[in-house]
Amino acid sequence: MSNTNTISSAVINRLPRYYRFLADLLREGVDRISSGRLSQRMGVTASQIRQDLNNFGGFGLQGYGYNVKYLHEAIGKILGLDTAHNMIIIGAGNLGRALANYADFENLGFFIISLFDANPELEGTSVRNIPVRGMEGLEAFIRDNHVDIALLCLPKANAIETARMLVKFGIKAIWNFAHIDLELYLPENVLVENVHLSESIMRLSCRMARQKDESEKAETGNG
Amino acid sequence: MSNTNTISSAVINRLPRYYRFLADLLREGVDRISSGRLSQRMGVTASQIRQDLNNFGGFGLQGYGYNVKYLHEAIGKILGLDTAHNMIIIGAGNLGRALANYADFENLGFFIISLFDANPELEGTSVRNIPVRGMEGLEAFIRDNHVDIALLCLPKANAIETARMLVKFGIKAIWNFAHIDLELYLPENVLVENVHLSESIMRLSCRMARQKDESEKAETGNG
Repeated sequence: MSNTNTISSAVINRLPRYYRFLADLLREGVDRISSGRLSQRMGVTASQIRQDLNNFGGFGLQGYGYNVKYLHEAIGKILGLDTAHNMIIIGAGNLGRALANYADFENLGFFIISLFDANPELEGTSVRNIPVRGMEGLEAFIRDNHVDIALLCLPKANAIETARMLVKFGIKAIWNFAHIDLELYLPENVLVENVHLSESIMRLSCRMARQKDESEKAETGNG
Repeated sequence: MSNTNTISSAVINRLPRYYRFLADLLREGVDRISSGRLSQRMGVTASQIRQDLNNFGGFGLQGYGYNVKYLHEAIGKILGLDTAHNMIIIGAGNLGRALANYADFENLGFFIISLFDANPELEGTSVRNIPVRGMEGLEAFIRDNHVDIALLCLPKANAIETARMLVKFGIKAIWNFAHIDLELYLPENVLVENVHLSESIMRLSCRMARQKDESEKAETGNG
């Protein structure tokens, strides 16, 4: 059996996509699938799929392919989806409220149990019956409840200070939506996953600019 | 000068992060920076930075480092940020409305000019003075306005059909928030950037599960 500790973050980054495609197959009633068919569907090579899954001991049988249900469960387990996770949202502005409204996460076992906001006007309001609390209640709430993940939906300016406070209160994992690479400011054992929406839109506009350049080159015959 | 068409998507994926760090330096009044200092700050190796920027002809001078303002501008241009982009949002639910409220995008030149929704009750409402229109007005709106990017904030079930309709109406770039790899269903010349929030949270929980495994192994002396 391979040592799972040495698995690259690139492989980990691809696992959720496998999980999503396998869930689609399950819904379609597909029992088993060859790496070839799965590769066609996912738009990656079959050898990439075999290589990725071999990191976890391999799940396929020669001539049979993958058992969809078993592989879906096994990857779910590697992804930590066999345990439920309690989450709190720090910052009940538009993004924080939108994420609280995203019931999809619950299907994966991620439950938002409270929002927190520094604005006293938001205290006592709720989103999908999830209460918004004031920041002064944060420490006691984390102490008294099992909070696995904090979602940070704050402006960049307040993100570092608030994240350090969360860590002091015992939070070990932060899903960060502030435009900052939060892990650079926190102890190494705190896990941070950044969502940089503005970087995503820049990647798109970069590809748009390059496509435009290419088509202009092609038109002027310099391509 | 290198052929920019051959630049890997990995490099493109890293450019927005350079842009963000350079913007921070500009705000701090830093005029120039060595690749060594920049690498410390960004948590990547100096050789990675030099290699990435060399793809674009290189911007550094031996013994001087990088001119922050010039590099920021040059990367902004590669990212297509020297042009403004008009965007529409398809789906004025919580996520669509949250994105419409995200004034940050405007600072980068991305302007949301309208939302569209199939729900007639939302028609005529607005978000930050940006109107929500009915889907029946979509074709004419795209024809009469310069729309560069469509943001897709719809459930998976409606995403493909709606995306194909957008393409038929002339949309060439889609920023997709539905849980589907939209590019697999559209013509190759349509640019798609997917934001898979549920994959992001799964990556975090995967790392949490692995950290837990490791610490348990360490405790039982099997690590």
